[in-house]
Amino acid sequence: MKNYMEMTENELKEQLEILNKEYESAKAKGLKLDMSRGKPSPAQLDVTNDIFDVINSETGWVSDSGIDCRNYGNAEGIPEARQLMGEFMGVPMENVLVCGNASLNIMYDCIASAMLFGIMGSTPWSKLDNVKFLCPVPGYDRHFKITELMGIEMVNIPMTENGPDMDMVEKLVSTDSSVKGIWCVPKYSNPQGIVYSDETVKRFAALKPAAKDFRIYWDNAYALHYVYDENIEIPEIISECAKAGSPDMVYEFCSTSKISFAGAGISAIAASKDNLDWLLKRLTVQTIGYDKLNQLRHVRYFKNGEGLKAHMRKHAQFLRPKFDVVLDILEKELAGTGAGSWMKPLGGYFISFEAMEGCAKSIVAKCREAGVVLTGAGAPFPYGMDPKDSNIRIAPTYPSLDELTQAAELFTLCVKIASVEKLLGIA
Amino acid sequence: MKNYMEMTENELKEQLEILNKEYESAKAKGLKLDMSRGKPSPAQLDVTNDIFDVINSETGWVSDSGIDCRNYGNAEGIPEARQLMGEFMGVPMENVLVCGNASLNIMYDCIASAMLFGIMGSTPWSKLDNVKFLCPVPGYDRHFKITELMGIEMVNIPMTENGPDMDMVEKLVSTDSSVKGIWCVPKYSNPQGIVYSDETVKRFAALKPAAKDFRIYWDNAYALHYVYDENIEIPEIISECAKAGSPDMVYEFCSTSKISFAGAGISAIAASKDNLDWLLKRLTVQTIGYDKLNQLRHVRYFKNGEGLKAHMRKHAQFLRPKFDVVLDILEKELAGTGAGSWMKPLGGYFISFEAMEGCAKSIVAKCREAGVVLTGAGAPFPYGMDPKDSNIRIAPTYPSLDELTQAAELFTLCVKIASVEKLLGIA
Repeated sequence: MKNYMEMTENELKEQLEILNKEYESAKAKGLKLDMSRGKPSPAQLDVTNDIFDVINSETGWVSDSGIDCRNYGNAEGIPEARQLMGEFMGVPMENVLVCGNASLNIMYDCIASAMLFGIMGSTPWSKLDNVKFLCPVPGYDRHFKITELMGIEMVNIPMTENGPDMDMVEKLVSTDSSVKGIWCVPKYSNPQGIVYSDETVKRFAALKPAAKDFRIYWDNAYALHYVYDENIEIPEIISECAKAGSPDMVYEFCSTSKISFAGAGISAIAASKDNLDWLLKRLTVQTIGYDKLNQLRHVRYFKNGEGLKAHMRKHAQFLRPKFDVVLDILEKELAGTGAGSWMKPLGGYFISFEAMEGCAKSIVAKCREAGVVLTGAGAPFPYGMDPKDSNIRIAPTYPSLDELTQAAELFTLCVKIASVEKLLGIA
Repeated sequence: MKNYMEMTENELKEQLEILNKEYESAKAKGLKLDMSRGKPSPAQLDVTNDIFDVINSETGWVSDSGIDCRNYGNAEGIPEARQLMGEFMGVPMENVLVCGNASLNIMYDCIASAMLFGIMGSTPWSKLDNVKFLCPVPGYDRHFKITELMGIEMVNIPMTENGPDMDMVEKLVSTDSSVKGIWCVPKYSNPQGIVYSDETVKRFAALKPAAKDFRIYWDNAYALHYVYDENIEIPEIISECAKAGSPDMVYEFCSTSKISFAGAGISAIAASKDNLDWLLKRLTVQTIGYDKLNQLRHVRYFKNGEGLKAHMRKHAQFLRPKFDVVLDILEKELAGTGAGSWMKPLGGYFISFEAMEGCAKSIVAKCREAGVVLTGAGAPFPYGMDPKDSNIRIAPTYPSLDELTQAAELFTLCVKIASVEKLLGIA
């Protein structure tokens, strides 16, 4: 395909006319698709429906450890669930608390708690003039919304194919005591699907922060969520930090939101015993305990880490063709045009697209006008501001393959139009 | 029975000898009972076991309103659950958000949010030198733990048989702008089981607070939890506040913790639309949404407010004989001795006992030594400090009738010993 960059103005104008006609007929189709969030499809949710049957009058509601899961108590989670989520993350159950249905809520609670009470004896962040978080970009919008709400200053850190730019991270963390945290999605990063390299993980563990209450917020949301190769592993961060002499430097988070049910899974936090003691002391004021019946449901259904992994193979079967469809259409329609670039993600829920500078908002607007809602341009950046206005997060998991084909074709069409318009100097 | 106050020293000494012998043989029984928390008994939990069957492959996981409850979304709760919890509280569903399994967590979140962000434009409380909460005493220990953790100064307000001392409440709320809230359990108060009078409720609604961000924290935990008479009603506070010209002055909380399962119910907050909008804006940063499958379970099982009420009749059948056993033993063993007083609670989960001044800690310690764990003396007061060291919260719901008989007999024995010791001047 001819590169737009090499076209004359007249050729570009011709192209634009053709593309605009295509766009008009695309609009006429009256598409109505929401690809804004990383939601599992109904078919994917169906693979877990048997979980509804594991608690009944025959199986009962008492855990093997003897806990009546209907009643109060056990704010740290039932032992079996701590074991299960520990196997998920590769850490001992003693380092795990099992919480409610959203790991985002634990992350929020950790940060709200640091704002109000500090961390293990440090000054509450709300009493400090300046608190900063490092934000690898593009990243997960909901992480950034939390730090924005708290008034925490966010510093962009560029992502590389091996993870965040560690030179920059090391420098800022070791020299600036107002840097209190960094958001990480280490495996199948949101939105690029990048896996942190072993070296990156080890450099994280070896950080020597200027602030005692600096923590790595290690959101291992997609630890098991491969798309193409299930054998990708990264070093386990809790033990790496301990080995490097900083056992308290990391909070790890995970959930079964994209393993069992997006809205009704269980979540967990892993950290050093001292960290957990500090958190639990406040957590037991905040709540009487999380839903243990749902914990029991998950324990009985998945049994152990192997059970989780086996289940993820079913999910991958749904995800792979969807990623393939989008990647194929991107390749077919855009390769060689210079209108953008993308990576093949190794796992996770997204494909990250880099448009020509200044084109992302326009592409998202054109898609929406023709009935396809994408994640807002800029969302994967702190304050919703993509300095280059070029990143777009594509969430291919929810639509059917047919819908996805139509949406991806519309998307590439809008990318072409925006690119040609840019080259022609139109709006 | 002879009043201890009227006994001579010798008579008291004789009494003590007899009582101590009884105590030694009670200890020899090796009781092991935990009456420290208001937990439903296993038999009570059993009455809701059919709730496990309402979601299955035949009934499906889609709400009548068309929401796939397995997936993300609907942070405000599914409409059917908002309707159900609205009927619980007697307010329209538009004024209700349905949350996770613990209403305590919503209360915590409301206060943590006010600390960090203020309320509807007010200064964040963490930026103020002085924030106070009024605390009717005796009250719910977990309320006081939240305000204590936040560093909020707690001011004791005496309870009367009609609710908190409203003269004192009115004066403090209207004149002191550092008073930002009051904890209330308006129906079957914890621990006394008092029902606020109509006049008390109306005086609450008519409050003219000095602080714009003053809120009544109306924890209607036991709204339907009668023991003897199911027809007790109090005025509905949200509409009362609106009628009185202060629609934003109240947050109301409730949950099904003591209707379905203590650890796995659903909770709700009711408030004016402006209040909910303010809260929801932050709540949607804090979490992606609460467990809608559990909401659906409750909606299908209870159907409506009448369904909840019908279910409470089953619970009352378990509770009534337990309250009767304790009240009968208190009457039989202590009436006329001057060793303490108690009220017959109208509902809720507790019996509140007033020992002679300075005796509560000693009674709780003696009970514990003989194998019965009560709620810590002082717990129903801010900072765990009962100024008179006289209040003890008895939680009669969890033990069996047999166990309860033994525990209540031990309790009255310990009360007698502590009273006689006090009159004799023995520490």
